[in-house]
Amino acid sequence: MVLIALDRATAKRLQRLIEEREWEELEREIAKLHPHDLSEFVQSLDDEQRRLCLTRLSPRLVAQFLPELKDEIQAELLELLPPRAAAELLMHLEPDERADVLALLAPEVRRGIMQYLPAELRSEARALLRHPSDSAGGLMTTRVLALPRDMSVEEAIRFIRTHAGEYETIYYLYVVDEKGKLVGVLSLRDLVLAPSGRKLGEVMNPDVIAVPTDMDQEEVAKIVADYDLAAVPVVDREGRLVGLVTVDDVVDVIEEEMAEDMGQIAGTGVGVDRLIEAPALEVVRARLPWLLVALLGDGIVAASILKRFEETLASVVALSLFVPAIMTMGGNVGLQTSTIFIRGLATREINDRLRYLLREIKIGITMALIAGVAVALFAQLLVGRPVIGLIVGTAMFAAMSLASVMGVVIPWLFEKLNIDPAIASGPFMTTTQDITGLVVYFTLASVLLQQMA
Amino acid sequence: MVLIALDRATAKRLQRLIEEREWEELEREIAKLHPHDLSEFVQSLDDEQRRLCLTRLSPRLVAQFLPELKDEIQAELLELLPPRAAAELLMHLEPDERADVLALLAPEVRRGIMQYLPAELRSEARALLRHPSDSAGGLMTTRVLALPRDMSVEEAIRFIRTHAGEYETIYYLYVVDEKGKLVGVLSLRDLVLAPSGRKLGEVMNPDVIAVPTDMDQEEVAKIVADYDLAAVPVVDREGRLVGLVTVDDVVDVIEEEMAEDMGQIAGTGVGVDRLIEAPALEVVRARLPWLLVALLGDGIVAASILKRFEETLASVVALSLFVPAIMTMGGNVGLQTSTIFIRGLATREINDRLRYLLREIKIGITMALIAGVAVALFAQLLVGRPVIGLIVGTAMFAAMSLASVMGVVIPWLFEKLNIDPAIASGPFMTTTQDITGLVVYFTLASVLLQQMA
Repeated sequence: MVLIALDRATAKRLQRLIEEREWEELEREIAKLHPHDLSEFVQSLDDEQRRLCLTRLSPRLVAQFLPELKDEIQAELLELLPPRAAAELLMHLEPDERADVLALLAPEVRRGIMQYLPAELRSEARALLRHPSDSAGGLMTTRVLALPRDMSVEEAIRFIRTHAGEYETIYYLYVVDEKGKLVGVLSLRDLVLAPSGRKLGEVMNPDVIAVPTDMDQEEVAKIVADYDLAAVPVVDREGRLVGLVTVDDVVDVIEEEMAEDMGQIAGTGVGVDRLIEAPALEVVRARLPWLLVALLGDGIVAASILKRFEETLASVVALSLFVPAIMTMGGNVGLQTSTIFIRGLATREINDRLRYLLREIKIGITMALIAGVAVALFAQLLVGRPVIGLIVGTAMFAAMSLASVMGVVIPWLFEKLNIDPAIASGPFMTTTQDITGLVVYFTLASVLLQQMA
Repeated sequence: MVLIALDRATAKRLQRLIEEREWEELEREIAKLHPHDLSEFVQSLDDEQRRLCLTRLSPRLVAQFLPELKDEIQAELLELLPPRAAAELLMHLEPDERADVLALLAPEVRRGIMQYLPAELRSEARALLRHPSDSAGGLMTTRVLALPRDMSVEEAIRFIRTHAGEYETIYYLYVVDEKGKLVGVLSLRDLVLAPSGRKLGEVMNPDVIAVPTDMDQEEVAKIVADYDLAAVPVVDREGRLVGLVTVDDVVDVIEEEMAEDMGQIAGTGVGVDRLIEAPALEVVRARLPWLLVALLGDGIVAASILKRFEETLASVVALSLFVPAIMTMGGNVGLQTSTIFIRGLATREINDRLRYLLREIKIGITMALIAGVAVALFAQLLVGRPVIGLIVGTAMFAAMSLASVMGVVIPWLFEKLNIDPAIASGPFMTTTQDITGLVVYFTLASVLLQQMA
């Protein structure tokens, strides 16, 4: 009764049915499963078996789990099928899902398939494909239930009884005026509870939260999450209701956006979630550029800086013992600071950037003071020369304090230049701090050692 | 019509009303706003104004936005109010929200307030407080609509018409047997579309996805997201329906859990989101321990290791030029690897850990080879001694390859020891790699240089 995941025994049985080419039996078994489990099963098959299975099952059945499959597999399947068969499969999808699948294809493949779609679905798909996939328009379904405001509660209930099957969700009912402009909302619950003779315009809530088609998906997700909505209507420039974004799409957006930020912090380039099961070569292509940024900074720039201080290093070898500590502490503070700041920008919780910078400086100096004193004491213990302790402690204090300033200022600058501030986190930030730390350390060492001499 | 956020002018007007102690006028103005905007407004006030405002407004109004306020502010308010007034305020909340607020309070304050709650609400709150706040039981509301399976469709519609107001959501209707065991589900849409004389047991879907009360909230969130549910029922050990988790609670869980993982990667200790607006001292308390881990590793352990190689360093100063590069590259690979692996464990996409390790080794060796050759060539260019190029290149190759192994093995080990594997990312991972890299580098240098001599 409590269905949670596809068990191993069932998966084995299904696999045997594929091997034995028992398509009818397979079809019956598969029809009982949840689309999500089916997609997991299909993805666990090897390429050959998966192709066989996807091309042999009925389009109606494949359509149920197609949108849950990975993008590459969706595209592969539609390219394998004859265009007419691909179009038939697509006809079983919701409009927003259909547009999403079509957007994955090469333009000529897409055109080939679209010519077999009924004219109405074709123009609907074209309209949806016009919106960038990461905007409200790209996220929405066009099947939204819009009722005229002079309809009565009773008529509305009757209408829903006969038409509900056509709509993805009827959690909320949207009310529009004669021009299609969104003027109010009511939940199915409000409708069921309202006196049957009243007009929708009288029982609706006129304060409806809506988003424009071109709003960024991250912002749409934030509104749905903040206002605890099950769905948010999408309106065009004239305020006309054109679509609906539901909370399950928003959950995916939130995960995707956070996984992207996580990827920037960890220096994996693209979103972390996309690398978990990606082919090795693709992972290398995403991760290597960030390693090369670090190699450029620490291998070339930092090494060249150290070379300028080679004499100092040669005369006071003890200085090199603390190179790792100075580098690391600045890098860690920079990464901490930039991560929190960038997340605060993404969630729009940070408005006053200057005030945030001042708070961060206070935090940075406090931590720098503690770490600086600790490392100075230990340096004195290990090397036994007070001047080394003084240099190491002061340099660490300066490097960490600077790192907390730069952890805010660099992403802020990126934001002003219209570059994603998240790029300023991760290897970019730590490498910048490594270099800053070394320059501070050796400049201070040269000056102080010269004064002592 | 399109309400998106509280504008500045309104905020200013409300603030003036507080300053002028115009409570009735304020109450009227506030009643028009969305709870989320209200919570933002209240949080933007200074301590004094906020206290005044929260204690003077009617409990019914405060109850609307109380759950949206930050935990500290919720707790502060309830401690400020006389216990009887606090209880009155709590009576206006949903059961799960009431339990969440009560859970924030010190036991004696909680007891003081609970004695003024009606007996029924008191025992309901006690039952909810028994579940850990991060389990399905802690997340659920107990107000779930359960209908007997022999009820007719018509009776069910009539029942909902009269009782819908009592329930948080009626997106799904759950069907139970005589013992309260969950046996099926149907959406309000299915109900509205069903022939009115049929029994619920005949029209329901018997394959209902449910979760046990003690399931971890992260797992609950994953199920709701994967299966695109608007809500998931919660059952006790006997399979009886005891509550409901809705998708808006799940959105919060996903954001919270990902922000926590982000915090581990960036070494901020607690979840990133909790540090954006926290007081400076709290931020220091969260971040400093991780900096001290790095200081211990790179300041004390690494410095002591370098000291053992002081002679080598003194005779071949050029070696110290590449200390930053060797350290950084291992650290970066380790952080990349562990982040993706840990996320794959959290999303349950990685099942075969050994296979993942093998793929990661392939990726790591490829990247290590490229970086190793690049740094060897540059070292030759900068220093002009082939042996240094050989040492630096080989050490970098070894350190990066090792880092990709350890990036999987260490979190895997943590998982086996029942420690959160995410802790093995961030400063812990980079510091471990820094030390490993240095040991590899200097051991190799000592051996090779000795052989040459």
